[in-house]
Amino acid sequence: MENSRIEPASKRSTVRRLARRGSYDPAVVHAILDEGLVAHVAFDHQGHPFVIPMAYVRRGNDLMIHGAVASRMLQIGAEGLPLSLCVTLLDGLVYAKSAFHHSVNYRSVVVLGTAREVTDAADKRAFLDGLVDRVAPGRARLVRAPNDKELAATRVLAMPIEEASAKIRTGAPVDDEEDLAWPVWAGVLAVGLRAGPLVEADGAHERPARPLGVGE
Amino acid sequence: MENSRIEPASKRSTVRRLARRGSYDPAVVHAILDEGLVAHVAFDHQGHPFVIPMAYVRRGNDLMIHGAVASRMLQIGAEGLPLSLCVTLLDGLVYAKSAFHHSVNYRSVVVLGTAREVTDAADKRAFLDGLVDRVAPGRARLVRAPNDKELAATRVLAMPIEEASAKIRTGAPVDDEEDLAWPVWAGVLAVGLRAGPLVEADGAHERPARPLGVGE
Repeated sequence: MENSRIEPASKRSTVRRLARRGSYDPAVVHAILDEGLVAHVAFDHQGHPFVIPMAYVRRGNDLMIHGAVASRMLQIGAEGLPLSLCVTLLDGLVYAKSAFHHSVNYRSVVVLGTAREVTDAADKRAFLDGLVDRVAPGRARLVRAPNDKELAATRVLAMPIEEASAKIRTGAPVDDEEDLAWPVWAGVLAVGLRAGPLVEADGAHERPARPLGVGE
Repeated sequence: MENSRIEPASKRSTVRRLARRGSYDPAVVHAILDEGLVAHVAFDHQGHPFVIPMAYVRRGNDLMIHGAVASRMLQIGAEGLPLSLCVTLLDGLVYAKSAFHHSVNYRSVVVLGTAREVTDAADKRAFLDGLVDRVAPGRARLVRAPNDKELAATRVLAMPIEEASAKIRTGAPVDDEEDLAWPVWAGVLAVGLRAGPLVEADGAHERPARPLGVGE
């Protein structure tokens, strides 16, 4: 982490707590965003902060989200009001000798700023293709493409990944020297998102060799 | 879901998009909170919404979070300024015949409101014990307990689970009738957080039969 650290883009995107865990390297930020599947988006509405989960795709230096035109959060974002997005990957539960040093291994990214609405139909289509291809590469051209009505019902926002920071904890528990002989097991339980079985939809076709459209 | 639906506690905690997916049943809300490990907490700072990931524990009708006394978010929460917390469990990737009906199976809870600071030392200890026991039942009394200095360095907030809603999507893709014969596989890929191997810390004791303190 130390070698890849570059300067934060702004004071408010600077990691404050345990700053040694912070990174502002675009490669680190992008890798976390590309592995995650859900972003938590914070916005203000009538003086109260709200947070909701959203699917997303990174395209270049933009974090892209979408939803129904009527979505309050997307309306607020389209008006240029500030948003924050956070993507967190949970990597492990950290068991220390002392209660105090129990922790969690994780990689997270926070992006602050304002989004712009993507209104060009070709750009919207490219984003929606990217969203499908992300969970099954090559699938976007196999499925029934969005029609004009669906496209009109969908709002797409692009949030620049500029004021962004990553925060990462890895490795073993860090106990105080005087606790190292405490007679309890200490270590890390790795955790992570794993894929389970494929369940075919009722009435779907025979499952082909490449069910999700991967490959060629 | 339909049978368990009760009224939302407030207009602003009412699920707006795809309201049929919403639930206000405390049992549903609690079950999701008890399964999750990370909450995303939104707060306002100088006119900008922020969102950060936090470990948490539910105790009765409170969602409890903690961290360093110097944490900006916890200071803001302790001052009684509004917060929102969201816990999301990702359950599946939903592949439809049409790009438009691709979706995600998930269970999420959003809690809105203001938190109170827990200042009583016994209450703080009980919460911190709960945090350890949650990831390894019975472990809190095996580890070195928090000392007074650690307790003083830790701020604990309790957020009442009152203005809360759950949102859940389960099951197969829902395609338009005219797309059902489209020649592409459709169905669900189950995903979920899974535990991997235990990795012992350097210098830790021999791994006992119940490494994490589970059971008795």
